[in-house]
Amino acid sequence: MTVNSSEYKSKRQWSEIISLINSARRFVFSTHADPDGDGLGSELALARWLKKQGKTVDILNPTPMNGIYRFMDPSGEITDFKVEKHQPVMDAADVFVVFDIGDFKRLNSVGEAMLRTDKPRVSIDHHPGDKHQFTHIMDDASACASGILVYDLIREMGGSDFTKEIAEPIYAAIVNDTGNFRFNNTNSEAHAIAMDLLRSGVEPYPIYMNIYEQTSRGRVELLKYTLENLKFSTNGELAWSVLTQENLDTADASVDDLTGLSDFMRSIKGVEIACSVVALNGDPVKVSLRSKGKYTVNDVAGSFGGGGHNFAAGAQIEGPLDEALALIVNACLAKVGASTDVW
Amino acid sequence: MTVNSSEYKSKRQWSEIISLINSARRFVFSTHADPDGDGLGSELALARWLKKQGKTVDILNPTPMNGIYRFMDPSGEITDFKVEKHQPVMDAADVFVVFDIGDFKRLNSVGEAMLRTDKPRVSIDHHPGDKHQFTHIMDDASACASGILVYDLIREMGGSDFTKEIAEPIYAAIVNDTGNFRFNNTNSEAHAIAMDLLRSGVEPYPIYMNIYEQTSRGRVELLKYTLENLKFSTNGELAWSVLTQENLDTADASVDDLTGLSDFMRSIKGVEIACSVVALNGDPVKVSLRSKGKYTVNDVAGSFGGGGHNFAAGAQIEGPLDEALALIVNACLAKVGASTDVW
Repeated sequence: MTVNSSEYKSKRQWSEIISLINSARRFVFSTHADPDGDGLGSELALARWLKKQGKTVDILNPTPMNGIYRFMDPSGEITDFKVEKHQPVMDAADVFVVFDIGDFKRLNSVGEAMLRTDKPRVSIDHHPGDKHQFTHIMDDASACASGILVYDLIREMGGSDFTKEIAEPIYAAIVNDTGNFRFNNTNSEAHAIAMDLLRSGVEPYPIYMNIYEQTSRGRVELLKYTLENLKFSTNGELAWSVLTQENLDTADASVDDLTGLSDFMRSIKGVEIACSVVALNGDPVKVSLRSKGKYTVNDVAGSFGGGGHNFAAGAQIEGPLDEALALIVNACLAKVGASTDVW
Repeated sequence: MTVNSSEYKSKRQWSEIISLINSARRFVFSTHADPDGDGLGSELALARWLKKQGKTVDILNPTPMNGIYRFMDPSGEITDFKVEKHQPVMDAADVFVVFDIGDFKRLNSVGEAMLRTDKPRVSIDHHPGDKHQFTHIMDDASACASGILVYDLIREMGGSDFTKEIAEPIYAAIVNDTGNFRFNNTNSEAHAIAMDLLRSGVEPYPIYMNIYEQTSRGRVELLKYTLENLKFSTNGELAWSVLTQENLDTADASVDDLTGLSDFMRSIKGVEIACSVVALNGDPVKVSLRSKGKYTVNDVAGSFGGGGHNFAAGAQIEGPLDEALALIVNACLAKVGASTDVW
């Protein structure tokens, strides 16, 4: 099951973008603010490949990367954009390429600097959306990650035998956006590409570990409070837990550290709906809902003006906490078909 | 990147086993005691495929499966072996096929019943080891799961276009033994096969969830105590936590619920070595060590008479707890190059 470079045939129409790349010498790459493993991996892989072809590539991002991704850029190929410093780089570039952007606004000042020139602007993205600010667009929502598109582009440009330093960021991009091949966006193409990347010497576990085994100390503390406050109802089908401002303060935790707590609660055996409730000073009570698939929860969130996906949704409910908690727990109890006065 | 059945060429030598299968009508399948997703998935996939070819297959396992795997067998194709009831089935079989066994002894009374006949006994396994009790052996430690070998066998027998009910157990087998494509045993072959199985309609997330998002209530309670007792040293590179008999009793938890706690501790940002210490009444103190890869831990375990893999190892140390704890924490501190009197 190997595919030689000469046999590779993309299902996508890259010809105009490839012509543009072939005609250019100097590139500026960017991705969305708060870049993730997919945006960063896409930038790094294509930059490393183009540099091997003798091109010049500057990667200028609108905001610094979260520390967990620093392992992807050990030699500092990625720079935080400063308009006063980098406008000359923008002016000298032949082509801009933007990865994983979703919405042009998420380029912040990088986008403004791009629009001050009349250079071609390429979007390579797996988020559907309005891309009218771009001159060349490769949008494919069937790709589980923008990194998939970068792999496809490099192959279509004749690249093969990816070196490890090109294979690794593409692999990290896929791992990042598929929950390490776990979510249902993982498709045959993702595995086909992973198959090829592992041949280049990529080791799966270090990349998984660097992205997913980096629980912050603040999150560990919040998990402890979540477990201490954990309640179950209706034979354990519903689980909920409350965190307060005091918990966050004592844990020395940030709002970012709240991520994943409802996912953890859903992972408990027997739990069908997990409900994380967070009451911070001065804010409405934040509710995060997760379902294993037996019940939808976006409708529950929707009844409080929130929304989301079928099995992962959220809402904000005006306090005080005890009233908001009663509302959301009762709504969840109704969802699982229980009497709403059992707790 | 598709491979037609007629083109498929296994790298393994299946011809004798295929001749044997083709010549037989009645099969008994089995796997090791306390069967896991790989053994069960291997049995189910090959049984479902052979039944479609008009063969008769009984799956008789030495012990019941853990409840988390019951999703794999919704219609009860797997039976717990009872010698008084099933010896006639064994006597009527033409061929026995055993999956994922490692050591014949793990067949318990199923193995004894097999040896009371002179039928051919086939081992399909990815664990190396002494297989002298088998007449036909396919041992391949390069396969990340026995399910890989079953896929390979079915393809080599001309099978293609796997139906979902055959693809799902093979996918579950791979997910089970690779930590969902996370461990370094995940190779190109695993992704190549996953690529093909997803084409048959396998949905990744439900299988992941059924195997990995089933944290028992007892384990949740033990995790809470682990977090409450968590200690760090040397800038967070070393983390350790102690659980006692009292914790297990209060949590209503079993020894099985201890699994994974040291893995969780290792997943904390900055932690390089995680050390879980469990003191149960009447037992030596049990130590479980995990490393992110910067330091080996099997040598640390070895210094107490234990062992394991480079980055996952364990040992037992005679109590009392406070003395055993001082010994293991000091050994870990020495490993990370710290003074041993900092805690």
